[in-house]
Amino acid sequence: MQALRNAWYVAAWDHEVTTGAPFARMILGEPLVFWRNASGEVIAFEDRCCHRQAPLSRGRVEGDSLRCGYHGLRFDSTGRCIEIPGARAIPPRARVQRFPVVVHRRWVMVWMGQESAADHALLPGNFSCEHPDWRYRPGYLHYGTPWGLIADNLLDFSHLSYVHAQTLGGTDRIASVRPEVTRIQDGVRVSRFIPDVTLPPYFKPLWRYEGRVDRWQTYDFVLPATLIMHSGARRAGAAQGATVDEVDFHSCQALTPETADSTHYFFMEAHRSHQGDTSTTDGLYQGLLQAFEEDRQMILAQLRNLRARPGSPMLPLPMDEALVRFQRLFQQRLAAEAAESVPAKAPTEPSRESSEH
Amino acid sequence: MQALRNAWYVAAWDHEVTTGAPFARMILGEPLVFWRNASGEVIAFEDRCCHRQAPLSRGRVEGDSLRCGYHGLRFDSTGRCIEIPGARAIPPRARVQRFPVVVHRRWVMVWMGQESAADHALLPGNFSCEHPDWRYRPGYLHYGTPWGLIADNLLDFSHLSYVHAQTLGGTDRIASVRPEVTRIQDGVRVSRFIPDVTLPPYFKPLWRYEGRVDRWQTYDFVLPATLIMHSGARRAGAAQGATVDEVDFHSCQALTPETADSTHYFFMEAHRSHQGDTSTTDGLYQGLLQAFEEDRQMILAQLRNLRARPGSPMLPLPMDEALVRFQRLFQQRLAAEAAESVPAKAPTEPSRESSEH
Amino acid sequence: MQALRNAWYVAAWDHEVTTGAPFARMILGEPLVFWRNASGEVIAFEDRCCHRQAPLSRGRVEGDSLRCGYHGLRFDSTGRCIEIPGARAIPPRARVQRFPVVVHRRWVMVWMGQESAADHALLPGNFSCEHPDWRYRPGYLHYGTPWGLIADNLLDFSHLSYVHAQTLGGTDRIASVRPEVTRIQDGVRVSRFIPDVTLPPYFKPLWRYEGRVDRWQTYDFVLPATLIMHSGARRAGAAQGATVDEVDFHSCQALTPETADSTHYFFMEAHRSHQGDTSTTDGLYQGLLQAFEEDRQMILAQLRNLRARPGSPMLPLPMDEALVRFQRLFQQRLAAEAAESVPAKAPTEPSRESSEH
Repeated sequence: MQALRNAWYVAAWDHEVTTGAPFARMILGEPLVFWRNASGEVIAFEDRCCHRQAPLSRGRVEGDSLRCGYHGLRFDSTGRCIEIPGARAIPPRARVQRFPVVVHRRWVMVWMGQESAADHALLPGNFSCEHPDWRYRPGYLHYGTPWGLIADNLLDFSHLSYVHAQTLGGTDRIASVRPEVTRIQDGVRVSRFIPDVTLPPYFKPLWRYEGRVDRWQTYDFVLPATLIMHSGARRAGAAQGATVDEVDFHSCQALTPETADSTHYFFMEAHRSHQGDTSTTDGLYQGLLQAFEEDRQMILAQLRNLRARPGSPMLPLPMDEALVRFQRLFQQRLAAEAAESVPAKAPTEPSRESSEH
Repeated sequence: MQALRNAWYVAAWDHEVTTGAPFARMILGEPLVFWRNASGEVIAFEDRCCHRQAPLSRGRVEGDSLRCGYHGLRFDSTGRCIEIPGARAIPPRARVQRFPVVVHRRWVMVWMGQESAADHALLPGNFSCEHPDWRYRPGYLHYGTPWGLIADNLLDFSHLSYVHAQTLGGTDRIASVRPEVTRIQDGVRVSRFIPDVTLPPYFKPLWRYEGRVDRWQTYDFVLPATLIMHSGARRAGAAQGATVDEVDFHSCQALTPETADSTHYFFMEAHRSHQGDTSTTDGLYQGLLQAFEEDRQMILAQLRNLRARPGSPMLPLPMDEALVRFQRLFQQRLAAEAAESVPAKAPTEPSRESSEH
Repeated sequence: MQALRNAWYVAAWDHEVTTGAPFARMILGEPLVFWRNASGEVIAFEDRCCHRQAPLSRGRVEGDSLRCGYHGLRFDSTGRCIEIPGARAIPPRARVQRFPVVVHRRWVMVWMGQESAADHALLPGNFSCEHPDWRYRPGYLHYGTPWGLIADNLLDFSHLSYVHAQTLGGTDRIASVRPEVTRIQDGVRVSRFIPDVTLPPYFKPLWRYEGRVDRWQTYDFVLPATLIMHSGARRAGAAQGATVDEVDFHSCQALTPETADSTHYFFMEAHRSHQGDTSTTDGLYQGLLQAFEEDRQMILAQLRNLRARPGSPMLPLPMDEALVRFQRLFQQRLAAEAAESVPAKAPTEPSRESSEH
């Protein structure tokens, strides 16, 4: 599945890129290495030495430079080679590509397109990732599927009634209530109100309540593939804002294509800091993990079917409204990007010896 | 390797398709789901929801219907969708393909070709699979090889002398005796009489006899790929029918292509019910498993060689007579089927959104 | 990666080919079987029966013949079939290809090209593999990479400073000293002298010395891909030949392509027999294994990068001198071999039935 290049992608949670140890992650089919220089700033390089294509992530950080672990070439924070053991001169071509990167509320975000287009105004609204009012445990799952199938899943919550009957869902009512879908800047907004249902198992660590509740979910799903959601439940029939008998969540989730066929899934769902303690946070995280594994198994099974008969038609149904609109937007942006012929990388001169092997 | 579509294939032993739980198995590259409706009848569907291609086998049986576990579409026994959560209308295209299926003497058999051609008269002669005179344990092996190599193996029992020297064979004499091969309706009949040999290890659970025996094997190997065999041993030189010093077996085996490169192998070898007890049946089954694993290892090794040099010539030898005649018959039928241009499936209209991903 | 066919390749250490049991190994994409006839001579056949392509390595040695384990065909030491169970006549085409093979100082060497060109004068100079003055443990590693990347590694020892910092290297000085590279018959010679460094960890089992040393390495790397090296260390500043404070090694290593994408790596590094005991030999072997595993991990990582972007340019640097010269020589020989249109095998007539499956 294709992906936009002119976009910020979540590459890692900030704690994954530690001081002193280079961190490897493939994004959009490109092996990247992330490391922190002497001032703690995160640097992103292509994870391949210009000499013989060994991954720089197998090398070591030396202050403000990164040294290749194969033959010892050393690169400064800009990607320029500043040392070649045993050689006096350093050819100008001895450099590796650097990618724009920013740590944005605990998300290490990398820009995979044209450097001049990298715009901080396009960073996502994941405020609860770093906010004293909210508490969570950061989550990561690797998916052996294209990102689009996961986006489809996130754009139609009717699946909560079936895939997550024992976890996030707990009732057939989610599927039977039609959400409101509106087009917003760079994505779609989906809102659903589910009145008078029992509390789903997932909520239990936070709220041990046996009565019936009203539930709501409102999320924006924006390009490239980020979900920002406010959701919750309150005593059935209670007025909005009657916080004594209410729990709410703020969730930030992002899909980053690893390759055309695999995806990094970064997620968290935060609860209010003043409700519950660390074990509450842990319990909710475990519940979320269990539910997201239910999704992963379903989507992997769906993919096996799609691969067994490529091009099989999908039958459009009313519940697909959000995903159809998002897909349309994505295709428009993809076409626009292709029309601009964005050069994805700095041009490289061919060398005499190539890596044919 | 290709396969006939207008044929009954063993899809499962009947105990594999339980009440209440859908059962998935791929046949001829087609993912299928088998389930029992309220009256216990086995139903076979393509294992993909018409909505977004999720496998229905991850859903649940609800009385006479099967519900998809992704977004909750529900299908009746004919494959027609009868419920779409959150939607009022059900489009006529909302249906899944149903395949003819019959439980025939404990074999769940599915017809993969044109529905109008499905003829119960073509069901195999596996009578001992359900007969009070015979006792056995049902067997299943998965083969990571095309079905044709396994058929080749079953069509030339000279391999018993070498592959199964320590199990089914026990003597070089099997290979040195030429069998009689005759063409029968839909296949070949192979008969072999091996006089005056020792009893092979495999027979030991049934007959602890130290003297010399005469052995015989007579089997039909018929399309698509079913072996029905009567075999046995008696005290050397004794007249046929002197049952006191005789043991005999009836064996039913079937190869069902999973894909072009993998095969389901269903097998059993029954002994007379009045001879031995449950531990006899178990002992024989374990011996058979051991021998069939010897075949599987040999055929996998043969396949690695064939893949390492595709198109390598095989040298025709006298012992290949049965397999050459069966192969010729199979190719004729395959060509006939192609000439009739059998539409393998009900035609499906293309939808606006396809599953390219 | 391509490979020369007219060359001796190490197929096995001699102890791998035991009496009585056929031994399978794939060389240059060709499955081969090695076995010893009644006089202990090693015979090499293609590992595929001419009948139905089953591997002969699953059969059994019977005196001076090898019998197929599938249907019992028996072949003499020349590859001619001398028995077909159940058949009276043996067709002339019933034979398997035999390859020239020689056991040369514990290396079982096979010639993969034109038989008439097989010349014992081309056997490698691995004298220490069988010499009373030297002691070692034979080593083997399987590489899931083309042989060329491993050759590149062996042709530039500057990597010792980085890949093997904790094992064979122990100092940045190896990379900073430029070796002398000369073209020799069939390969290149690389010599390096590294004065006044600490003893690397790898030497410790042999020499528990805390002072500074001078080190040297001189090796020939010759076609098809054999390294013969003399190396060592002596007390810093001591004259050459002051053997009291000196240790030296003789190493023989060979790369044999298994397929275009995988390689057999045979290696040993011998120490002087009069220095140390069996535990010394073992300790050195364990150190070597650890270091060669460091190489393997680096080269596998390099290969993943090369595969992720085929044709990526490599940047030529001074340290590549030996590998560039060896590559050039190899390409010349490869082109020459292609120009001669060497028929790699005896011509085979097509049979009526081929192995399409």
